Amino acid sequence: MSIAEAGEFGLIARVVARLENGPATLLGPGDDSAIVAAPDGRIVASTDVLVEGRHFRRDWSSGADVGHRAAAANLADIAAMGAVPTALLIGLCAPNDLDLAWAEDLAGGLSDEAARTGASVVGGDTSFSPTLTIAVTALGDLGGQAPVLRSGAQPGDVIALAGRIGHAAAGYTVLSRGFRTPKALVEAYRRPVVPYAAGPAAARAGATAMIDVSDGLLQDLGHIANASVVGVDVRTGAFEVSSQMRDAAAALGVDPLQWILAGGDDHALAATFPPGVELPAGWTVVGKVHEGTGVTVDGKPWSGPVGWDHFR
Amino acid sequence: MSIAEAGEFGLIARVVARLENGPATLLGPGDDSAIVAAPDGRIVASTDVLVEGRHFRRDWSSGADVGHRAAAANLADIAAMGAVPTALLIGLCAPNDLDLAWAEDLAGGLSDEAARTGASVVGGDTSFSPTLTIAVTALGDLGGQAPVLRSGAQPGDVIALAGRIGHAAAGYTVLSRGFRTPKALVEAYRRPVVPYAAGPAAARAGATAMIDVSDGLLQDLGHIANASVVGVDVRTGAFEVSSQMRDAAAALGVDPLQWILAGGDDHALAATFPPGVELPAGWTVVGKVHEGTGVTVDGKPWSGPVGWDHFR
Repeated sequence: MSIAEAGEFGLIARVVARLENGPATLLGPGDDSAIVAAPDGRIVASTDVLVEGRHFRRDWSSGADVGHRAAAANLADIAAMGAVPTALLIGLCAPNDLDLAWAEDLAGGLSDEAARTGASVVGGDTSFSPTLTIAVTALGDLGGQAPVLRSGAQPGDVIALAGRIGHAAAGYTVLSRGFRTPKALVEAYRRPVVPYAAGPAAARAGATAMIDVSDGLLQDLGHIANASVVGVDVRTGAFEVSSQMRDAAAALGVDPLQWILAGGDDHALAATFPPGVELPAGWTVVGKVHEGTGVTVDGKPWSGPVGWDHFR
Repeated sequence: MSIAEAGEFGLIARVVARLENGPATLLGPGDDSAIVAAPDGRIVASTDVLVEGRHFRRDWSSGADVGHRAAAANLADIAAMGAVPTALLIGLCAPNDLDLAWAEDLAGGLSDEAARTGASVVGGDTSFSPTLTIAVTALGDLGGQAPVLRSGAQPGDVIALAGRIGHAAAGYTVLSRGFRTPKALVEAYRRPVVPYAAGPAAARAGATAMIDVSDGLLQDLGHIANASVVGVDVRTGAFEVSSQMRDAAAALGVDPLQWILAGGDDHALAATFPPGVELPAGWTVVGKVHEGTGVTVDGKPWSGPVGWDHFR
C-alpha cells in the first residue's frame, strides 16, 4: 500500500504505532505540540535534513537504515555538546507512491536509534512532496554540565577521538562502485555506530572543545581550529586500519587514509583535552593542538580532500 | 546570485546575518547544536514542514512572506499549548538556482515573525534539493502553567476563538482565481496575524482544551471533540463577516461562511472554557460543548467541507 492510499491520518497512525516513549517524554504525538522534560533548565537543540539522492539512496539503504542514520546524525550533534539526547521531532516529506511499509520502517529505525540514547520520537509532521526528505530535530539535556563548544581548544591540548572513523566512507565507496560487500563496511555506512555516551563523559572529564565528525575529520577539526584560533596536527600513526578496510582499499585502489582523514558519516566524536587529563574510556589521542592556525597531518599540509561531498 | 554560486557556507553566513537573538538564546547558530533557556524544566516542541507547490507558491508570496507564514504555523502550535515560544530551528532544502536574496528574505521573515513572540531562530541546516522545502521546529516554555491539551473539554464549556478566521482562506481563493486584491485578504493569506499571547492567557484563565486552527475551524474543533469525547456546536451568528470579505465572496460566488468554518491558515486559537469564566481579552464565544460526539453548526450537521486541502 502506498502512503497516498493510506492517507495522511492513516500514515501518521501507522508511523506513530512504531514509536516508543522514552523517560523524557511528558506528552508524545497527537496534540499541537509535544512536551519534553528539560531538567537542566537549558535545552540543546539541533536540526539536520536528509534529501534522497543527496544524503541517502533507497537502493542502498532500507527504510530502517535511513531512520537509524537520520537519527544518528542528529543525536551525535547533541552528544558533541556534552549533552544526553531526550527527544526527536521528524518532518517527513514523501512522494505519493512511497510504500507505507518503508515509512513505517523509517519510523522504527528512528525510534530504535533514539532508544540507544534514552531518547524517543515525540512528534513531527508529514507532507506529500516529489522529493523524499527527512528533517530531524534532536533535543538534549546538559545535566548540569557546561556545554563543550568548538571554541575552547588551547595550545598544548591533546586531540582525541571516540568511535569508528573511515568505515562509513569505505562502505560508501564500496556501494558507489556497485558492490554490496564487505558487509561490515557497508553496514557501517548504513547504520553508523555512534559513541553517544562518550560526549557527556568527555564533558565531565574536562574536554575543552568537541565536535561531531560528520563531514570528515580534517574538515571538522578545521572548525575547531577556526573557532578556537589554534592550529591542529593529526598523527596518522594513531589510526588503526582494520584488515578489512585495508583489503577493500587495495581492491578498490583507494588510500585507506583518505577514508579516515576525509570520510564522513561515521559520526565519531573529536574533542580536545588539557594535557595530563586522564581520557574517559573509548577516547584515543590522535593529535595535538598548537599555537597557529589550520590543520596539518604529521606536521605537514595535507594535499588530499579534507571533507566529504554527499553525492556531489 | 544563486545559492549554488554562494555555496553552502556562503548561504549560511548570509542567512545567519539576517537573524536576531532573543532572550532565550544561550547559544545561537555555529556550533553542533544551539542552546535555549528552558526555565520551566519542560520544553514544548512542534515541527511543521512546508513544501513548495503544496503549502506555498513563490509567485504568490515573497521569501519574507513564506518566512512569516512558516514561523507562524509553528509558533501558533506552541501558543496553543498555553506556552510562550522561545526558539525556532530551520531546515531549508532548496534548488541550486534559488536566488540568494530569496533565502535571505525567508530568514528575515522567519526571524521577524519569531521576534513578535520574543523567540528567535537559533539554528538549522541547509541542503540542495530539487523541491524547495522548509522544515520548522518551534520550542516554547510553559512558565509554570499546566499545558492545555485537546482532551480536556467538558460538556457545558463554552467554545471561544481568538484571532481572525476565514481571512487567509479568502485570500487564498482570491489568489487562486488570479486576482491580487483585495489587498487585506491577500495579505492575510501571505502573513497570518496570530494572537500568540492569547494562548498563555487562556491557560492562565483556566481553558480546558485548546487548538491552533490550521486546517479549518470545524475540522480542528473535531479534533477537540474526539480527544475530549464530547460534542461541539458552533453558532454562525457569532462570526462577524467583514464587508471586505462579504464583497469578495459575492464577487467570487463563494459563501463567506465556508471560509470561516472550513478555511485554514489564519492560525486563530480555539479553546474551551468552563461556563462562567471571564474570558481573557481577545477571546469571543462562538459555541458550546455538550455531551455527545462530533461537530454541528447551529445545532445541525454541516454539509459543506470541514477542512482545508492544501493545493489538492
